[in-house]
Amino acid sequence: MALIVQKYGGTSVANTDKIKWVAEHVIRTKEKGHDVIAVVSAMAGETDRLIKLSRSIMDPPDERELDVITSSGEQVSAGLLALMIKSLGWDALSFQGHQIGILTDNSYSKAKIVKIDDKKIRNALLNGRIVVVAGFQGVDKEGNVTTLGRGGSDLTAVALAAVLKADACELYKDAVDGVYTTDPGICSSARKLKKISYEEMLEMSSLGSKVLQARAVEFAKKFKVPIHVRPTSRPDSEGTWVVEEEEAMAEMEDMVLSGVTCDKNQAKITVMQVPDRPGIAAKLFTPLGDEGIVVDIIVQNVSTEGYTDMTFTVPKTDFKKAIKKTEQVAKELGAKGVDSNDKIAKVSLVGLGMKTHSGVASRMFSALAQEGINIIMISTSEIKISCVIEEKYTELAVRTLHDAFNLGE
Amino acid sequence: MALIVQKYGGTSVANTDKIKWVAEHVIRTKEKGHDVIAVVSAMAGETDRLIKLSRSIMDPPDERELDVITSSGEQVSAGLLALMIKSLGWDALSFQGHQIGILTDNSYSKAKIVKIDDKKIRNALLNGRIVVVAGFQGVDKEGNVTTLGRGGSDLTAVALAAVLKADACELYKDAVDGVYTTDPGICSSARKLKKISYEEMLEMSSLGSKVLQARAVEFAKKFKVPIHVRPTSRPDSEGTWVVEEEEAMAEMEDMVLSGVTCDKNQAKITVMQVPDRPGIAAKLFTPLGDEGIVVDIIVQNVSTEGYTDMTFTVPKTDFKKAIKKTEQVAKELGAKGVDSNDKIAKVSLVGLGMKTHSGVASRMFSALAQEGINIIMISTSEIKISCVIEEKYTELAVRTLHDAFNLGE
Repeated sequence: MALIVQKYGGTSVANTDKIKWVAEHVIRTKEKGHDVIAVVSAMAGETDRLIKLSRSIMDPPDERELDVITSSGEQVSAGLLALMIKSLGWDALSFQGHQIGILTDNSYSKAKIVKIDDKKIRNALLNGRIVVVAGFQGVDKEGNVTTLGRGGSDLTAVALAAVLKADACELYKDAVDGVYTTDPGICSSARKLKKISYEEMLEMSSLGSKVLQARAVEFAKKFKVPIHVRPTSRPDSEGTWVVEEEEAMAEMEDMVLSGVTCDKNQAKITVMQVPDRPGIAAKLFTPLGDEGIVVDIIVQNVSTEGYTDMTFTVPKTDFKKAIKKTEQVAKELGAKGVDSNDKIAKVSLVGLGMKTHSGVASRMFSALAQEGINIIMISTSEIKISCVIEEKYTELAVRTLHDAFNLGE
Repeated sequence: MALIVQKYGGTSVANTDKIKWVAEHVIRTKEKGHDVIAVVSAMAGETDRLIKLSRSIMDPPDERELDVITSSGEQVSAGLLALMIKSLGWDALSFQGHQIGILTDNSYSKAKIVKIDDKKIRNALLNGRIVVVAGFQGVDKEGNVTTLGRGGSDLTAVALAAVLKADACELYKDAVDGVYTTDPGICSSARKLKKISYEEMLEMSSLGSKVLQARAVEFAKKFKVPIHVRPTSRPDSEGTWVVEEEEAMAEMEDMVLSGVTCDKNQAKITVMQVPDRPGIAAKLFTPLGDEGIVVDIIVQNVSTEGYTDMTFTVPKTDFKKAIKKTEQVAKELGAKGVDSNDKIAKVSLVGLGMKTHSGVASRMFSALAQEGINIIMISTSEIKISCVIEEKYTELAVRTLHDAFNLGE
């Protein structure tokens, strides 16, 4: 008998028919003799509806109150799934964040889980019950309701699996049946991976793959929670396991790369002719950080005659805010001006094999060059290489790289 | 400076325009220098939508999960009102039942408030904030979410006013601008009362007046909370005060009655020719009580030859369940049979003056007789007289009694 945490996204609980499908799958797992904890998102569209309603009143909405409002979506779907399981003759109990002490910090709308009190869940499981948990939500130490950010229900599931030492954390997806070498919508030869390491999955999530939330993967890596990505519609299909490096490597044999990702939520800002003094980067980026803007790739030109150009990328969604702040700081620093471009994208190669294989970068650059795609910025880490390119070339670049490295085979 | 608890029903927060209206009125009260706690119901239609959704899954729905689901409505409207107040430049903070320890028993869907922890609310008020509280909901001592029954937000408001020793508990209504001598929809000469005593209001609520929830009035009476019923649309109009007997009497001078009510949610069941042995009533009514059916008026015929007829009324909504149970018990008791009728209604006269004025009952019976309305059952208490009549005569009876006692003057 195993303990299985299952997570179902908004599309999987979008209406009562779909909730029934989910309930039946939960029950099948229970019937196999396993203990089951089902974590649910809000019904598809509900979170957006609540955010829109809130914005029509106050934009941007006060974050504390927004979390109170949006967390109601998961509360409803958790209750409905528990009802459905009961109506099918099994005993179920729903829990919200405050009921099982999902303690978070107080960063509303992007709170971090600090602790979970597993007592009530363990008691319910001991009594033979199926436990249903509202994803996405927690409470801070003052009892304020917090939410974990978009995709936060994945994190709830992984965190519960970690605390309860679950044998598997199954994340059911509607749009995909596993993790692919790249987005099948862009590249038809994309191939489903049987296994991928936490590190690679983390890079892929950070670099644009939407299958799993990066924070959930990080959490799973830290607590060694085996994640199983599976399709809701065919719950018994193989899916993809996200596991530790050694286990993933054994499976992948001599594969150098596991995937190509792209991210169009990118914009670039250049501060021209800044006086090149020590501490200039801190002066430039601290104010952006204070505004909550995450700066990604930074390139500093070689200094000429005491002046330099600083180029960096930010999420497109923070573009306007970032330009405004940068222009202000650039003036204070005595820079000549600020240039910007939001018609860019980032394509990345990810693979543990890069640690031991050389030549990946040069092969990447040549492949892009052969298609006439200009590389604007480059960023590398131990297991990934990212290139910033013109946005219009995004799909071409993904297909080119996927082919160049034979990822479809 | 006073402490005012204000409660706004679902129609008053039905959309963002109405929420703005409410926020502005809350702020006006705050600007007068008062501390304000605003209690809100779910947006109009939301509770019904959630109940319908739940019933489409399980009917009747598991009560614990139904409370989890329905309580989300008040959570959302509390968050939205807090947002609106903030967007208008004032500081506000929303609280749910679990955040301010609205501790109840565990009777899901009709929980009773046991205790409220006022610390967080007092702190927020001390910091100059407007406090918004989600009505209708609480938690039991295990942390399970409970709800207080239909109209439960009135009870939340009164309970908060009691615990915080508020100077007034203002209950804003959409359909009416105060408490009337009878339903103005039935009797055009109905007159708005300036004051009414807790006792009378309690009888009127129990006997069919929908203005206030009986439990809220009971709570107010117990803790001497002055209730002020006011119309949302004209928040500065006079409305009706529900206060202690002495104060109400002073105002009413020599008024004998304060109102006529009617209740069509009535059905009657007769158990015919039951052997008249001691304990027969207990044997009959205990099983009904166990099913949660509230028996109202009971009439037992004079026994003839060791047999008697027992007639009683139950809510029409429990009629089928009650008949089924009664037929079963009647058989066990050796009764001849069960007769029933759900085409009945109850009209009642309520007034503190009955304590000192005689002849009210006989005047009531004559007035009804003059219109040819047959009285089927009679029930009296210190301050009310109820007659069960044929349902079709309900409105005629109300108008007749309202006129006969000159309540419109």
